[in-house]
Amino acid sequence: MASKAPIVLAFSGGLDTSFLVPWLKERTGADVVTVTVDTGGLDDAARLRIAERARSLGAIEHHLVDGRAAFFDETLRYLVMGNVLRGHLYPLCVGAERSLQARQVAEIALQRGAQAVAHGSTAAGNDQVRFEVALRTLAPELTILAPVRDEGFSRAYEVDYLKQRGFAFDFTKAAYSVNHGLWGVTIGGQETTDTVEPLPEQAWVLSRGVLDAPQAPRLIKLGFSKGVPTHLDQVALAPVALVEALNALGASYAIGRGIHLGDTIFGLKGRVAFEAPAAHLLITAHRELEKLVLTAKQQRVKDQVAAIYGDLIHEAQALEPAARDIEALLLSSQARVTGEVSVRLYPGHLFVEGVRAHASLKAASRGVYGEAAGEWSAADARGFARLLALPSMLHARAGREA
Amino acid sequence: MASKAPIVLAFSGGLDTSFLVPWLKERTGADVVTVTVDTGGLDDAARLRIAERARSLGAIEHHLVDGRAAFFDETLRYLVMGNVLRGHLYPLCVGAERSLQARQVAEIALQRGAQAVAHGSTAAGNDQVRFEVALRTLAPELTILAPVRDEGFSRAYEVDYLKQRGFAFDFTKAAYSVNHGLWGVTIGGQETTDTVEPLPEQAWVLSRGVLDAPQAPRLIKLGFSKGVPTHLDQVALAPVALVEALNALGASYAIGRGIHLGDTIFGLKGRVAFEAPAAHLLITAHRELEKLVLTAKQQRVKDQVAAIYGDLIHEAQALEPAARDIEALLLSSQARVTGEVSVRLYPGHLFVEGVRAHASLKAASRGVYGEAAGEWSAADARGFARLLALPSMLHARAGREA
Amino acid sequence: MASKAPIVLAFSGGLDTSFLVPWLKERTGADVVTVTVDTGGLDDAARLRIAERARSLGAIEHHLVDGRAAFFDETLRYLVMGNVLRGHLYPLCVGAERSLQARQVAEIALQRGAQAVAHGSTAAGNDQVRFEVALRTLAPELTILAPVRDEGFSRAYEVDYLKQRGFAFDFTKAAYSVNHGLWGVTIGGQETTDTVEPLPEQAWVLSRGVLDAPQAPRLIKLGFSKGVPTHLDQVALAPVALVEALNALGASYAIGRGIHLGDTIFGLKGRVAFEAPAAHLLITAHRELEKLVLTAKQQRVKDQVAAIYGDLIHEAQALEPAARDIEALLLSSQARVTGEVSVRLYPGHLFVEGVRAHASLKAASRGVYGEAAGEWSAADARGFARLLALPSMLHARAGREA
Amino acid sequence: MASKAPIVLAFSGGLDTSFLVPWLKERTGADVVTVTVDTGGLDDAARLRIAERARSLGAIEHHLVDGRAAFFDETLRYLVMGNVLRGHLYPLCVGAERSLQARQVAEIALQRGAQAVAHGSTAAGNDQVRFEVALRTLAPELTILAPVRDEGFSRAYEVDYLKQRGFAFDFTKAAYSVNHGLWGVTIGGQETTDTVEPLPEQAWVLSRGVLDAPQAPRLIKLGFSKGVPTHLDQVALAPVALVEALNALGASYAIGRGIHLGDTIFGLKGRVAFEAPAAHLLITAHRELEKLVLTAKQQRVKDQVAAIYGDLIHEAQALEPAARDIEALLLSSQARVTGEVSVRLYPGHLFVEGVRAHASLKAASRGVYGEAAGEWSAADARGFARLLALPSMLHARAGREA
Repeated sequence: MASKAPIVLAFSGGLDTSFLVPWLKERTGADVVTVTVDTGGLDDAARLRIAERARSLGAIEHHLVDGRAAFFDETLRYLVMGNVLRGHLYPLCVGAERSLQARQVAEIALQRGAQAVAHGSTAAGNDQVRFEVALRTLAPELTILAPVRDEGFSRAYEVDYLKQRGFAFDFTKAAYSVNHGLWGVTIGGQETTDTVEPLPEQAWVLSRGVLDAPQAPRLIKLGFSKGVPTHLDQVALAPVALVEALNALGASYAIGRGIHLGDTIFGLKGRVAFEAPAAHLLITAHRELEKLVLTAKQQRVKDQVAAIYGDLIHEAQALEPAARDIEALLLSSQARVTGEVSVRLYPGHLFVEGVRAHASLKAASRGVYGEAAGEWSAADARGFARLLALPSMLHARAGREA
Repeated sequence: MASKAPIVLAFSGGLDTSFLVPWLKERTGADVVTVTVDTGGLDDAARLRIAERARSLGAIEHHLVDGRAAFFDETLRYLVMGNVLRGHLYPLCVGAERSLQARQVAEIALQRGAQAVAHGSTAAGNDQVRFEVALRTLAPELTILAPVRDEGFSRAYEVDYLKQRGFAFDFTKAAYSVNHGLWGVTIGGQETTDTVEPLPEQAWVLSRGVLDAPQAPRLIKLGFSKGVPTHLDQVALAPVALVEALNALGASYAIGRGIHLGDTIFGLKGRVAFEAPAAHLLITAHRELEKLVLTAKQQRVKDQVAAIYGDLIHEAQALEPAARDIEALLLSSQARVTGEVSVRLYPGHLFVEGVRAHASLKAASRGVYGEAAGEWSAADARGFARLLALPSMLHARAGREA
Repeated sequence: MASKAPIVLAFSGGLDTSFLVPWLKERTGADVVTVTVDTGGLDDAARLRIAERARSLGAIEHHLVDGRAAFFDETLRYLVMGNVLRGHLYPLCVGAERSLQARQVAEIALQRGAQAVAHGSTAAGNDQVRFEVALRTLAPELTILAPVRDEGFSRAYEVDYLKQRGFAFDFTKAAYSVNHGLWGVTIGGQETTDTVEPLPEQAWVLSRGVLDAPQAPRLIKLGFSKGVPTHLDQVALAPVALVEALNALGASYAIGRGIHLGDTIFGLKGRVAFEAPAAHLLITAHRELEKLVLTAKQQRVKDQVAAIYGDLIHEAQALEPAARDIEALLLSSQARVTGEVSVRLYPGHLFVEGVRAHASLKAASRGVYGEAAGEWSAADARGFARLLALPSMLHARAGREA
Repeated sequence: MASKAPIVLAFSGGLDTSFLVPWLKERTGADVVTVTVDTGGLDDAARLRIAERARSLGAIEHHLVDGRAAFFDETLRYLVMGNVLRGHLYPLCVGAERSLQARQVAEIALQRGAQAVAHGSTAAGNDQVRFEVALRTLAPELTILAPVRDEGFSRAYEVDYLKQRGFAFDFTKAAYSVNHGLWGVTIGGQETTDTVEPLPEQAWVLSRGVLDAPQAPRLIKLGFSKGVPTHLDQVALAPVALVEALNALGASYAIGRGIHLGDTIFGLKGRVAFEAPAAHLLITAHRELEKLVLTAKQQRVKDQVAAIYGDLIHEAQALEPAARDIEALLLSSQARVTGEVSVRLYPGHLFVEGVRAHASLKAASRGVYGEAAGEWSAADARGFARLLALPSMLHARAGREA
């Protein structure tokens, strides 16, 4: 038994992190404690499988942390409040959870007296950055080990290394690499390395084939309270349960599919397919509810900072204090975002049929749009139009005189 | 024959503007010249019907101006370049054309030596403002008459007035009020006076019933050159022809339907249903093409000013010089937005399958996302992550020390 | 004695509001209750003079409300937190107080059972809008009377009217019209009707002639706690006392003078001279303190919404809920804006010599700027530079290949 | 004579780049070509001294490129048009020139068949990033050598190395490190490593001691044409001559001094003193001229993108295509920014006395601010105020009903 302080490893159970358990032990002589933070996408069988693999690989402890409720509360809630879609399309299905995972790993490291934490990211992607930025911020005293990146181990080397030590897991490379979390699934494969072809039907994860035998349209009601989703068809659900229910329901209509061409933190273009039924449903419904209860100015101000918020989350800056400042604005804006949205599910898409809220700004008006004014007279409107014309009119006049 | 200078009336052929032809003549003793500016949505029969009605009502001249190409060039082009959707949904189907119409009316008024122009808007809606702001800016020397607004004539009074003078048009009020232009159709009715119910199927104009007998999905290719749509399935089309073809094609799939809850210029909430197949197709395709050829920073900068541009157009400020400044930025940004987008049409929705461009920033990279870096080393990535962490890390450190 | 409900008049003691006391009584038969809300710029003599004038003109009651502390707390505090200067120059010396004044007037009106409130604004300026927007929002059930605007009374008519009724105040029109409040003084006169000439020395109010006998430079220390100014030279002062002390001290150096060419709510250009010693000192000092404790991103986000906040306050929208949302962001951003700023006062200008804060982000770094890195290695810097180059490099490469 | 391709070295004549001439030759066996790009701050003596030093150190060629006019045209012009001040204070005195310098170095490298370029930056500062981002974008085929950074040579080592080879320059470290360019001087020293103390008087470079014997105030007139400064006291000057004249004149009043606490590209706080007389004069004057000829909306839109522009220039992103897009907006906005600004120079500060422009929006109005409306009636104003109140009023009403 190693007498050194253990290394705490963020563990997914995939090839890279599996390889790291024996490799870290052998290389450093330290014990390895594995931590899996569940931020969605795992069922009981998967959780068990990960734990068993960790132990069989030689981890002296395995921690499974259910981070879903915290993930919703700390991040997803604000992504809904801000209607955050990158590139007007992609709901940040993955990446947002890294900060939370880093915190859980750091906390266990501190409890266990570890001086080092490890992750299995490669040099290519965003996650190494998200993980390391969060760890350096939360626990700068910990050494960060990223051997797969820093040593540049190949897949073949890792498989070989494990086989030599008698670990006979099936590490056949899947045709598509899948990330699965509470806010959706991302899928990468041959097609997404270029920009021209879509994903083939069999590559979709949550909604594979559902369009071949489409269901009848169905009307659902989504309830919100101060911007937080709370009800499905008037049944109160905790946020995580609600998101999971909507992921299942929406996926049965293939709602929330897309292919996003985005910008990685490193400045490359990256293309990724995604399925995000709950995110698509909740953000669309919430956005329409806001239109009923927020003033135009409130919406415009929110939109400006919400775009920045999405960038911060995507670009590994979830712990930037600017994100806290934006959250304060978003929370303030949601004081009246309480009501119900009727959404009809169709194969492949949704349609918002109506919204209802106690604090409706439409109901507050005595005016009926397009019919009669109510709140103002013809003379008021004439004066208003005259004054709205003034800046452009003066500009035109100055131009003529100039 | 009146010897006075004529009054030039913006004429749609609806009840309000029909009423104004005899009313203006009788009230002022001046001749009435009618002007209809076609900004889309009129077929030959409609154009003829409007002209005949104008003459039968006693207009001494009727002008039909085909404003479609100018409308695309002056406004719609920039709405595509800016991917402008109000409330992330509504493509400004109506309203944007008012400035152009005002200019045509003003030009004819000046040619004909008129001192007054008239429009038929009521006190309730946005159009009076758009029309008057444009007229005051372009031709401040003209008197603007808006008798329907200023005298508050009721529908019944107008029908009666026309009947008494022998005009026996069918002015039965339609159940739904429809505006039809190149950029889409808007529909208002009983349901849109509240926020809860959707439009019934029979009220849709372009796509009524098409979902009852859905067509098979179809793949189309949309070509763009410097941000301007130019090709459908590799056939070059002038912008107006392309938009009209996409309106017809998209409507056959009920693509581009929506119900928008927006903010009128007056500050009221207004709900309106719309069908905008071409706008929805072009903006979605253009936005995805941009993701391939613009840097992340270009997209973010564009987004900020495009939102303002949409507000300016909606809020009667199409002639604000700030709109010209934003157009300059948008034009600059489009230098490389040339390529082809594959879009699959499904009943009720579309799916962008892929994009292709000569100036692809994805093709420019030797890196393959998620697989290997190519443009940088592991050490580069580690350094990058370390430096991105610095502001939040210092903030955390300062907090601990404080 | 009138048995009708009284009219509550916002009363400054100037010609317009003096005229309104007898005019409203005669015209309506109602009693007149006058309300003066002190938002700065009044001394005891002035307060007494206003009260005496109100009573002598026949007001049945006069209310003097000390609104200074509320004014600071509700508005000025956020103008400091947001470093709000219109046109990068003008600290909103006047105008911001109207919303508070409207609320006080409305409250007294409701207490006294009034159904109408009156103000003395003309048709020309911003204040009528600020006053009426606030009143309609806070107390829409009250009728608003604005006789000077709506009847277009001339100055001569008003003087005459008062003289005929035996009121022999000195209403000689001053050469310069002055507004005086806690956040500064504005001055308009012959020169400000054009844009070419400055104010003559004798027209300045707070700092007239002080540059003729300049004082020696003096170093002061301004202390802030969570963004709120709290100390002058390490003596704790309540905000109003601190602002008043800084107005006196700064004026003795002619600090905070300027001439602003701005945009009125109506869309006209308006030029106004101002003296705002305290605002200039506090905003400059606070801005430099923020640079020490806020991250770059926090500053950038704040700046964006603070500019909107300034527009809202200037443009009569202090009660817009969007202003509340922005205040929430500003408050969040100020959590660490606690420290001390050294400012040297010179004749006509100030110079920030240094800042000191417990939560200094400069002190948190082990790096010494320009000397040695400390937080990163040469390799980290090289990797960082390589990755920052990537988007532009790919863009250049795509251009060459295209 | 080396037969290898030469190395092109960006050469300032300071210790680091002097050291690199022999070091590069010895280490690589290649010839060294030195390039000094003059972007301001050099007089003839300095230019000669640099050239002589380069040759005496063994450079086979020395190129002096006068980059001042190009620097103004490519960068400073837009900093004026955008009124760019970082942190509302600092006019980007240094840093903006790196992109131009990199281009000149790259061009000479390509002409001379070089495969490598070298610079003398350390690991600590912004300049390595600006230089390398520009070089990688403009000439990715060139190898970049940064030995001072990558080998971490100490000052003592470099001095020693040079001495051993018989180079007996005076390399005594100055108490203050000074950067001098067309847009100003920056000064760092003991005081700027902390945030509390100001620079001592003797450390200022351009304006040392001028406040001890202050000059009498002086009125100057600055002329602009389409946003570009063109005249001083009605004498036409080319931009570089005008900037240099204003630097001399302004420095004689100690105008444009400041101490900025900013954010480096790396995310550290950095404090720097600066003297930027021309930048301060031109930006202040230009900003006030814009207020006369631009609409409020134009100013607001410009401000938003100009802040981003300043960040791009500061943060090594001068070659980002987004900067080109913003420049297009800025250029469009300047179409009417032609006129004259009266600025009075005082010891330590300036005061804008007035502005005059052919396209004055103030002159275009028949309204006289604060006196009479002219462009609208009392009823128009009442209607306008009523409508501006609507959103907040509806919000209040919805709140009461809720």
